[in-house]
Amino acid sequence: SHHNPLKKSNYSGRGMTLEQDIDETNTYYLHQGVAVIHKKPTPIQVVHVDYPKRSAAVIREAYYKQASTTDYNGVFQGAYIDFEAKETRNKTSFPLKNVHEHQIEHMRQVLTQSGICFFLIRFQPADEVYLLEAHHVIKYYDEQQRKSIPKKDIEQYGHTVKTGLHPRIDFLKTVKQLYF
Amino acid sequence: SHHNPLKKSNYSGRGMTLEQDIDETNTYYLHQGVAVIHKKPTPIQVVHVDYPKRSAAVIREAYYKQASTTDYNGVFQGAYIDFEAKETRNKTSFPLKNVHEHQIEHMRQVLTQSGICFFLIRFQPADEVYLLEAHHVIKYYDEQQRKSIPKKDIEQYGHTVKTGLHPRIDFLKTVKQLYF
Ligand SMILES: [Mg+2]
Ligand SMILES: [Mg+2]
Repeated sequence: SHHNPLKKSNYSGRGMTLEQDIDETNTYYLHQGVAVIHKKPTPIQVVHVDYPKRSAAVIREAYYKQASTTDYNGVFQGAYIDFEAKETRNKTSFPLKNVHEHQIEHMRQVLTQSGICFFLIRFQPADEVYLLEAHHVIKYYDEQQRKSIPKKDIEQYGHTVKTGLHPRIDFLKTVKQLYF
Repeated sequence: SHHNPLKKSNYSGRGMTLEQDIDETNTYYLHQGVAVIHKKPTPIQVVHVDYPKRSAAVIREAYYKQASTTDYNGVFQGAYIDFEAKETRNKTSFPLKNVHEHQIEHMRQVLTQSGICFFLIRFQPADEVYLLEAHHVIKYYDEQQRKSIPKKDIEQYGHTVKTGLHPRIDFLKTVKQLYF
């Protein structure tokens, strides 16, 4: 998220966050005519705006709001695509503390409408990206005892996403294998 | 848009903008399990943020950015839905001056991906709402001479959307008739 981006510090030293890599991937998909997927703007509660003469309105007081849905959505060959990107410095599990109730609720609603819905999870230490379908995350979330998903479970139920330069994180290749 | 909302002043005196009516419609659809459609947050360029101790971050300088896509998107029975809401005080035509090049470009991309894409246009004087499929608007936009779409053409090529209380603007009924 914009508040506290976890920087990736891998061998290549590019220092890109997962969201930056996904944004570049989506730009690649868009330019290649593969899919139309955008990051949703960060929701901001505007409290006070100045309207100076002869120049643009200036927002002088505003606050970040918690997102009520997921990070990304769009369309791929007619199908609705909706996902959340998360990265962790953790080596052995994906903590669920940063997954909010309303995001889970949104994912339930999307699945009810037959949308394609998943998490992209990057384990920073190993520099690995997994696609984990939403229904798995929902299951772990609903088991109240669970505070995290073990990495070995993500390796078992999730799908490794191919990473590279163009595109950086080829998640639609995985989506195609799973859903088409 | 948020900058200059055109207020509706109809017999009922509710004074709702088209976007407010659509937001309520989408909430109705969501609660009824009909569809998952949300308005995208207004994109804002944040320039300066204060981080006071023991309270939330305050944005102290920020600017509205022009939206690069459309107002609304989501999923309805597996299908990707994407649309722009516009209202006009004009009686006889829909002015194209508020339709931006990048919105048209986005709509072309969505159609290429087989998404369902349209405008919801309210003529305030008559209090009528039409669904006009994106390809029609693109055609008028590409005819350089055109500064507006005559209302009679919208009556011919578009589709009247049923309005009421619950939901206020039942555009998915029209979508269903056209695409399902
Ligand atoms: Mg995220
Ligand atoms: Mg609009």
